[in-house]
Amino acid sequence: MSSHPRHFIRMRDWSDEHIHALLETAAAVKANRKMNPIAAGKSLAMIMFDASLRTKVSFEIAAYELGAGCSLIHPGKGSWNLETELGVVMDSDKAEHLKEAIQVLSTYVDAIGIRAFPGLVDMETDREDRLMHLAAQYSAKPVINLESSWEHPCQGLADWLTLKEHFQGNTTGKKFVLSWVAHPRALPMSVPNTTLEMAARAGMEVVVACPPEMELHPEWVAQMGAEAGKRGGSVTVSHNQTHALEGADIVYAKGWSGPVLYKSPEFDIMIREREMGKWTISEEKLLGTNKAQFMHCLPVRRNVIVSDEVLDGNQTLHLQQAENRLHVQKALLMHLWNLS
Amino acid sequence: MSSHPRHFIRMRDWSDEHIHALLETAAAVKANRKMNPIAAGKSLAMIMFDASLRTKVSFEIAAYELGAGCSLIHPGKGSWNLETELGVVMDSDKAEHLKEAIQVLSTYVDAIGIRAFPGLVDMETDREDRLMHLAAQYSAKPVINLESSWEHPCQGLADWLTLKEHFQGNTTGKKFVLSWVAHPRALPMSVPNTTLEMAARAGMEVVVACPPEMELHPEWVAQMGAEAGKRGGSVTVSHNQTHALEGADIVYAKGWSGPVLYKSPEFDIMIREREMGKWTISEEKLLGTNKAQFMHCLPVRRNVIVSDEVLDGNQTLHLQQAENRLHVQKALLMHLWNLS
Amino acid sequence: MSSHPRHFIRMRDWSDEHIHALLETAAAVKANRKMNPIAAGKSLAMIMFDASLRTKVSFEIAAYELGAGCSLIHPGKGSWNLETELGVVMDSDKAEHLKEAIQVLSTYVDAIGIRAFPGLVDMETDREDRLMHLAAQYSAKPVINLESSWEHPCQGLADWLTLKEHFQGNTTGKKFVLSWVAHPRALPMSVPNTTLEMAARAGMEVVVACPPEMELHPEWVAQMGAEAGKRGGSVTVSHNQTHALEGADIVYAKGWSGPVLYKSPEFDIMIREREMGKWTISEEKLLGTNKAQFMHCLPVRRNVIVSDEVLDGNQTLHLQQAENRLHVQKALLMHLWNLS
Repeated sequence: MSSHPRHFIRMRDWSDEHIHALLETAAAVKANRKMNPIAAGKSLAMIMFDASLRTKVSFEIAAYELGAGCSLIHPGKGSWNLETELGVVMDSDKAEHLKEAIQVLSTYVDAIGIRAFPGLVDMETDREDRLMHLAAQYSAKPVINLESSWEHPCQGLADWLTLKEHFQGNTTGKKFVLSWVAHPRALPMSVPNTTLEMAARAGMEVVVACPPEMELHPEWVAQMGAEAGKRGGSVTVSHNQTHALEGADIVYAKGWSGPVLYKSPEFDIMIREREMGKWTISEEKLLGTNKAQFMHCLPVRRNVIVSDEVLDGNQTLHLQQAENRLHVQKALLMHLWNLS
Repeated sequence: MSSHPRHFIRMRDWSDEHIHALLETAAAVKANRKMNPIAAGKSLAMIMFDASLRTKVSFEIAAYELGAGCSLIHPGKGSWNLETELGVVMDSDKAEHLKEAIQVLSTYVDAIGIRAFPGLVDMETDREDRLMHLAAQYSAKPVINLESSWEHPCQGLADWLTLKEHFQGNTTGKKFVLSWVAHPRALPMSVPNTTLEMAARAGMEVVVACPPEMELHPEWVAQMGAEAGKRGGSVTVSHNQTHALEGADIVYAKGWSGPVLYKSPEFDIMIREREMGKWTISEEKLLGTNKAQFMHCLPVRRNVIVSDEVLDGNQTLHLQQAENRLHVQKALLMHLWNLS
Repeated sequence: MSSHPRHFIRMRDWSDEHIHALLETAAAVKANRKMNPIAAGKSLAMIMFDASLRTKVSFEIAAYELGAGCSLIHPGKGSWNLETELGVVMDSDKAEHLKEAIQVLSTYVDAIGIRAFPGLVDMETDREDRLMHLAAQYSAKPVINLESSWEHPCQGLADWLTLKEHFQGNTTGKKFVLSWVAHPRALPMSVPNTTLEMAARAGMEVVVACPPEMELHPEWVAQMGAEAGKRGGSVTVSHNQTHALEGADIVYAKGWSGPVLYKSPEFDIMIREREMGKWTISEEKLLGTNKAQFMHCLPVRRNVIVSDEVLDGNQTLHLQQAENRLHVQKALLMHLWNLS
């Protein structure tokens, strides 16, 4: 097997072979969870531009169980605001440039995680994940995407492991519905983008269910359709949730705002208000499925995205997904540090 | 001895036998303080809804000295705001429910500490410590009360150890004055509630000194009076601080607002303003005591609660109390994890 | 060699002999960087009144690689606001006194770092570094200055190591230009003060280049001139940057506001606005030097303090300075804990 990429920024830069090797490591460390300080002397820094619970704690504990150190940086909250544009005259409230932060951290630690949500103003800026690639360019150490403007690949790994566990490794041809649900706030496409990629590359029959105005970026959908096709699966889009859910094996719910948000925030609000409550996943909606399991990346808004009954019931994988964050990230550190 | 409760939320759920066993462990680890990584591979998460110095640092260092990992979560500050009400439609600014946070953390760590001060709006809500019990219900791992609406049991353990040390184990019948002192802000009853329970269960002659309007909850006082009685002690209430302090062996000062606050915040302010400065513990006030030692849980407002002279003098146990937080909490982790 | 001072608050309290011994330890741990848990069981607390990236992360990682624990305290952000004045009636928003915080932390940890930027209101208060000395007075454990009102000695150590590396130990007589640069905000003298001391004690020909209105405190300059003289160097002040840069071996840039700020903040603003951009270090300005290396403590404002070209070029030591923070601080902990 060729060596894996140096960074973990875009899941699609990692071949299926590398991903599956990583997931096998994850399954192994999950099966035999323990303190195993093979990374003693190594350490991880996480630059958190945005809020986090699972990502922060699961990486901290993964590092700890590997014997590694961990340090958190919160720009603007205890640490300096970071400038991320190139070539600017830095006379604003941003005291430090990301270039320096990354180069300096590279001398202290052995991997740098970055969480940076999108600005939701200019789509091309968000879509290019410039901040993440700038960091990678200046980092002497592996950079880990802890959720960027456009992707959430650590979530993708955890979800992929969850599906492999649930279907005993045989995900091909299973029906995976990624259902949009109206959310009170404008949300990025990072999780649905990665979810779509993950399910497509797992060879599933993927249906993206959403209102016509909330479709994901057409190039991404087309690209992932092609990826699915290579692996015996498919990607289709449906504007009818009821129809989409028929026979589903998995219902992955998520609120997002599509490319339309960048053209008109007012229109985005209008659509979300129009659809509010209509897409919420309930026990009734699951009746038409093939005893589908519910999935969500968390945090999830109860009784907005999904009913209490579903989330508190036994037809859901959301806690398994969350737990798997720990295991896949431990495996990721092991692979990035060549310890596996 | 029967096995201890799974959680450490209410001190009264732990029998005297369990408490004393824990305090003996604490005394032993204090006598031989060192790195002893018997908890290697285990870890602790602390959800801090409110500010902390002693609790945070002493638990972090206790975990470290046991070889355990530790992760902090600050809802609303780097982590998501957490919803704690059941059954609500989560369309507010709270992105995650405590149920999910607790269930997810349960898969990452081996104990979950929670600090959550009271709302001070509805007394029954505060008195029931709903948030803490909800967490315990959803946690697969021990939950530790790091100060809740109604109690501060870790402080109670540290204070109990301090009294055992000071009186060479013989606390029965010693005069313990819990003195209210006017404070510029409305404060919860958590510390005085726990202090009263601790002193009562240590079999002391407890006097709660406070203005009539600032009495603690009568049911709690009665219950603790009964507990004291079973152990050779007593609980009485005095509205005359001078009289109460006569012959005192311990003067434990604390500002609080009693049940009256819930009926009328304005009345609470009026009483505190009326009494401001009159109850402050000074060297002069200690003259009438039996060479009483001063106690306080910290943080303490100098020259509001107690004079500089007393706090900087040698008739005080406040630093010993604070240090003991570390030792009792290390012992607590050992007991909860069955490592002692 | 006599034993080193108990604290590391003022670099000038440490003799050249102690500093050089410390820098030798730093060079040794840098040459053989690894996990070496000689400080297992010891721990460090850092009280951060102000923002930090390098200081926080480099101390955390230094502690980790020594096997030590580390705990962060952010007054007012997750921890109590701390009162630092003596004798006051604490009825403001500051719930705890620094005295208690320090005495309590002394029982938990083995060293206490404090970062506290100046108030920039009363110069004598800032110059005396009262907060730092108050902490030292009440601490049973070594206190480390993580940048105070008047000094930044950890930065001084890192810079000194950097110069020793760059000049192969022979810093005497090299021309070191400390150049003021206009900055959009009023900044303290802590870094230039320490930089001046460090370069003077390294026996360099130091030139402080700044507008006449921005000279550093005359007593400090005179004192450091005397120190330089004892070691074969000198300190002069120039108001002509071009002239100062001629033949320079090192150009250390920094924005600051001098004593004039305390007399008139408006005047300070006027001077900085008048000089804005004129002192910025560019490739062109470096042409007149002796192939000078650029230095800066970071964070640095690109294209305000220094041009992108210089910072991204190969005539700069700023990243080496930043990396050396880790090594000198690891050595510092080893010396303070008598582990070297």
